[in-house]
Amino acid sequence: MTLVVVLVEPAGPLNVGSVARLCANFAVDELRLVNPRCDPKDPEALRMAVHGQNVLHNARHYPSLLDALSDCHRVVASCGRLDHGEIPLQAPEQAMPWIHQGLETNARVALVFGREDRGLSNEELLLSQRVVRLHSGDAYPSLNLSHAVAVLLHELERTRRQPNPHPLEPLQGGEAALPPQLDACLIDAEDLLLEAGFLLDHTAKARMAKVRALLQRALARPEEVALLRGMVRQLRWAIRCNRP
Amino acid sequence: MTLVVVLVEPAGPLNVGSVARLCANFAVDELRLVNPRCDPKDPEALRMAVHGQNVLHNARHYPSLLDALSDCHRVVASCGRLDHGEIPLQAPEQAMPWIHQGLETNARVALVFGREDRGLSNEELLLSQRVVRLHSGDAYPSLNLSHAVAVLLHELERTRRQPNPHPLEPLQGGEAALPPQLDACLIDAEDLLLEAGFLLDHTAKARMAKVRALLQRALARPEEVALLRGMVRQLRWAIRCNRP
Repeated sequence: MTLVVVLVEPAGPLNVGSVARLCANFAVDELRLVNPRCDPKDPEALRMAVHGQNVLHNARHYPSLLDALSDCHRVVASCGRLDHGEIPLQAPEQAMPWIHQGLETNARVALVFGREDRGLSNEELLLSQRVVRLHSGDAYPSLNLSHAVAVLLHELERTRRQPNPHPLEPLQGGEAALPPQLDACLIDAEDLLLEAGFLLDHTAKARMAKVRALLQRALARPEEVALLRGMVRQLRWAIRCNRP
Repeated sequence: MTLVVVLVEPAGPLNVGSVARLCANFAVDELRLVNPRCDPKDPEALRMAVHGQNVLHNARHYPSLLDALSDCHRVVASCGRLDHGEIPLQAPEQAMPWIHQGLETNARVALVFGREDRGLSNEELLLSQRVVRLHSGDAYPSLNLSHAVAVLLHELERTRRQPNPHPLEPLQGGEAALPPQLDACLIDAEDLLLEAGFLLDHTAKARMAKVRALLQRALARPEEVALLRGMVRQLRWAIRCNRP
């Protein structure tokens, strides 16, 4: 069972150091940084980290969020906006049981936090299966990055210690497909649908986002994604084999 | 908000009458009978119904489960078996909040119960979005039909009366697609995949069952099903337009 905290393009060394300390506070296994905009070993970061300095030293860098999530079975993103259109937002107490279950069953679970100024893009949110919106007020919903991390890690711990955590669907069928497998399938499907004329260049992104959101919501499993991939390949053959 | 109890091919008038009484006990709006194997107005049924006799008199008959569910937004089936392979089983307390939410938001909710001897077939289970397995012992899990109805209706009422019911995902994106829309889309998709050579006659049923289970698990919405249907049509055109 592995718990990973992922920060996407963090800009502030004080924030990064504080998050490292929180990782130590809450026994997070790994801190991953996607394209950080500051130096995690900046003295200010190290100072804020206090006893979490080893977390900073061990933090690995990744060029993209997809890379950082390539081995993560369960991915929950944090979003500070009031509404994200297509992407359903959950309260932390709704997502925590699912996260907790992942940790109990040897899945690697990632909690993803976005940029201080811009949060996560829609594409980045769609790389996660669940998106959590913390209970901040409507007037100023966006928490400081390290505060968001603190709240979510504490919520997770609270769930863990509850005598009767919310009953969850038993783990049937296994874990969801890893992000790279799902991503490759969707890219291939988009190709096919462009070739077939269902997608046009200007509609492709929005329409594929809907498909991705559906599959994330379903927690699509490896064998299901493989089945869809097989369909895509066969349909492509069927379209091409008749061409003069 | 409408709560419907659906019995599939019930054979015993005592059972049907008992279920009618339960519908009156728990303020169920409608009893629907799919191809009943007994006469609901049999004296034995009327006798068991006691003050629920009007439920029996008003019970409508349907030739198939799909027909009985054609206007139902949320469908939960009850299953007495220990394990149903592909189809994930939930405990009642996991499904009740979702049912309860449906009733609060003007959805029509159906609880489906199978034959006394054979329960529900896989195809029938796949017409529902959630399948509940009651907490009976492993040695003899299959409850008498009316007992299963009693337990589930009582569980639902208990959920309704709880001061702080389990928090549920807020209703974003609207209700799931109605069964006939999803069914038509899947039939069309199966056609396409047979034509493309992805499905063969002997693999079609099992593979389409997997696709159906995925979409049910996702609670696929009307606009999502429409999107998939549009893909199917365009892909069929793309395959055929190149044929000499």
